[in-house]
Amino acid sequence: MLATEAMRLAIAQARLGGVATYTNPQVGAVLVKDDRVIAVGYHHQFGGDHAEVDVLKQVSAAVAKGATLIVTLEPCSHFGKTPPCCRRIVSAGIAKVIIGQLDPHPVVAGRGRDYLLAHDVIVETGCLTAQVKALNPHYNWFYTHQRPWITLKAALTLDGKVNAQAGQRSLISNQAAYVDSQGLRSQSQAILIGERTLTTDDPALTVRLQALAHPPVRLILLHTSDVAVDRQVAQGGIVPTYLLCRQASTSDGLLARRANVHVLVDDWTPTKISNWCAQQGWQSLLVEGGSHVQASFAAAGLVDEVVWYLAPTLFGGTALPAIQGPTKPQALAFQAPVVTPLGDNLKVQWQRKVVD
Amino acid sequence: MLATEAMRLAIAQARLGGVATYTNPQVGAVLVKDDRVIAVGYHHQFGGDHAEVDVLKQVSAAVAKGATLIVTLEPCSHFGKTPPCCRRIVSAGIAKVIIGQLDPHPVVAGRGRDYLLAHDVIVETGCLTAQVKALNPHYNWFYTHQRPWITLKAALTLDGKVNAQAGQRSLISNQAAYVDSQGLRSQSQAILIGERTLTTDDPALTVRLQALAHPPVRLILLHTSDVAVDRQVAQGGIVPTYLLCRQASTSDGLLARRANVHVLVDDWTPTKISNWCAQQGWQSLLVEGGSHVQASFAAAGLVDEVVWYLAPTLFGGTALPAIQGPTKPQALAFQAPVVTPLGDNLKVQWQRKVVD
Repeated sequence: MLATEAMRLAIAQARLGGVATYTNPQVGAVLVKDDRVIAVGYHHQFGGDHAEVDVLKQVSAAVAKGATLIVTLEPCSHFGKTPPCCRRIVSAGIAKVIIGQLDPHPVVAGRGRDYLLAHDVIVETGCLTAQVKALNPHYNWFYTHQRPWITLKAALTLDGKVNAQAGQRSLISNQAAYVDSQGLRSQSQAILIGERTLTTDDPALTVRLQALAHPPVRLILLHTSDVAVDRQVAQGGIVPTYLLCRQASTSDGLLARRANVHVLVDDWTPTKISNWCAQQGWQSLLVEGGSHVQASFAAAGLVDEVVWYLAPTLFGGTALPAIQGPTKPQALAFQAPVVTPLGDNLKVQWQRKVVD
Repeated sequence: MLATEAMRLAIAQARLGGVATYTNPQVGAVLVKDDRVIAVGYHHQFGGDHAEVDVLKQVSAAVAKGATLIVTLEPCSHFGKTPPCCRRIVSAGIAKVIIGQLDPHPVVAGRGRDYLLAHDVIVETGCLTAQVKALNPHYNWFYTHQRPWITLKAALTLDGKVNAQAGQRSLISNQAAYVDSQGLRSQSQAILIGERTLTTDDPALTVRLQALAHPPVRLILLHTSDVAVDRQVAQGGIVPTYLLCRQASTSDGLLARRANVHVLVDDWTPTKISNWCAQQGWQSLLVEGGSHVQASFAAAGLVDEVVWYLAPTLFGGTALPAIQGPTKPQALAFQAPVVTPLGDNLKVQWQRKVVD
């Protein structure tokens, strides 16, 4: 059996974890012995067994001994939520480990491979690495660049407007685009909006079409917290809301007493927000607007991906563009887009051209 | 032989005419006798033989007699640049004519069909009409709506900007998009730009990649003609330039003495421009900007198609959107877009949803 065949199977297993793995990566594993697949497994959810453990649990000690383990991500070498997989692999007598990609997480970062090698396990790396990396783009980005993957998202008319008039809420997307954008939210660990979007749209910023164990936290960039008092996101509940305020206000105390509502006063800039998200361990930040917030992230160069839902409507003259603000423009280069028709709407995704 | 098979062949013939037919429609014709195709023909160019004549010329009188003629467009019944095809068909002894679509041109409009019927020719209409109509969308639109088909075209960044800063020329498109947009120009009978685009870009507004017998005329919407004196489009030459000025100026005389440069002073609005183009017989108008001109056509509801070339660049905050102006917005509804990747650029075309 080819290593690439087994790795493809491991990738398919990894995907079963989906967003349930939260800040953990999606990882899949396959055990092969005598040229046959004897077990498959994956990391089911945040806090659960790692893929290596999931697959080893399925076979007897005798069967595992001398087998080859194919795993999408380098086995861990540290005590985290679970004991290190490397020890388990060595104690199970696995003869060879084929690794899709090394783990960029600083507590692993080659130590898993080194542990295995030091214990006379044969290690092969570089198998389908590009495909394997694509399983966890935000995780890989986060541990390589020490900040979240930042996506600007908006629903636009074909002439690039987000509402017919500033301060007025406009329905733009069709149902298919709405459903897709909910999927986009479910894959994000934090969602950010600005003051104008809060007061114009009063959005819930929840993922309504899917029950998530770890829904994205909600960040609201404000001048002061006063405008948030009567808004949906600040009523308190299970999903944390962070009010990022530039100035303290008398409403702060009232709001902070609501469940999972936090008021943080600082001179918030895109860079500060990004760094703070990184400290919280959030690997992805979805910036949903409005135009000024989008413009400030663009001006700071903090845009890794742009996702537009383009509706076949033309608003014209005085309507508000998706990205517009007083900030100095900075041209950012992106790759060729991925286009997905959604009925008469169009989803277009551009990823940043990265020089690294 | 099926009528639809012959009509498909006639459609393929019609396309060979291409933009050389200018304000005439692209028309193809096929002669069938004893269930076999005996000749094919088409309208080669503006002023040349009609398709029916082109095909009949290829066979002897004896062969033509009793044959079936398949023609994409209703044969003409009037003396125009050539004698009416209907007479020719009748005198050739054609037994049956299968017509793709009736001619919306008011001097024909069913009269060709009626002439044939009155002379005992069997006439069949409605064969592949939708495909046939698609050969000449601007021609059909023009004679149905008595005004040109109006297309807004722009090269944009992914955030919908046409230049990094108002008044500054920015290169946005890649080479493939440039070539494609030249093709778009070649299919237009008139191109319009506004004052800001003239002074910022000083464009030639010519079709540079193709020799055309009838290149599009150039319309420049200005306050006064003064700003045009030193611009490329107003230097005089083979391609007519019309300076549509809101006020007379001392430069008018100087400019009007240049070859094919015309100064027309009026209180020009999109509706007035459209009506005037209709009077000239121009069936298609390509509005290339700037933002205010695009916005004024949108506000007037005079947009039949939007063609964007989207580049994978983000300009951000203060850059100028494609459609922006002081005019009152009016939401216009379009159909699902047609998307064409051009390298890392994206061509997106939306056609207006028409209720008629």
